[in-house]
Amino acid sequence: MSAEIEEILKRYSNYPNVSGIIIVDSFAIPIKTTMEYTLTVHYAALANNLLAKGSKMVQNLDSSNELTALRLRTLNHELMIVPEENFFIVVVQKPFE
Amino acid sequence: MSAEIEEILKRYSNYPNVSGIIIVDSFAIPIKTTMEYTLTVHYAALANNLLAKGSKMVQNLDSSNELTALRLRTLNHELMIVPEENFFIVVVQKPFE
Repeated sequence: MSAEIEEILKRYSNYPNVSGIIIVDSFAIPIKTTMEYTLTVHYAALANNLLAKGSKMVQNLDSSNELTALRLRTLNHELMIVPEENFFIVVVQKPFE
Repeated sequence: MSAEIEEILKRYSNYPNVSGIIIVDSFAIPIKTTMEYTLTVHYAALANNLLAKGSKMVQNLDSSNELTALRLRTLNHELMIVPEENFFIVVVQKPFE
């Protein structure tokens, strides 16, 4: 999985205004991060909860459907949460001008 | 509020690929919709739950911060959820090509 993770880090680093990338495993444990550790743990927990809730709701509405990405825009930054098979990715971006 | 609601409907109708717009009050009751009623109620409940959870989490991380929009991308469509002061807006879009 390590090569895959490196590839993902590289890919998302090229997104505009990226200030942090976190890879979180299916137990909600951050396995790779470019951010400070306390913040990483907070973001991982937030993303894990919201992703679980969002996925469940999308499937409740239509069992053939699937959540493929979640994006939160806040006053201070944007969070993109992308589920993969055995982990998920959190990308923190500064807001676009 | 009615003129404001009409203005919002008009504004979001101009977004690309919009297939539905729902305005939901702070009691999670849809007050205006362009979609079929059962689907409207489902979307309103989903959006209300996710918005509440997302807002709480963002403020837990940083009490000076605020969730300004939530976007779900699924296999079949995209959902944009935008909180306003006394209501929130749900916009359903077909996925971009």
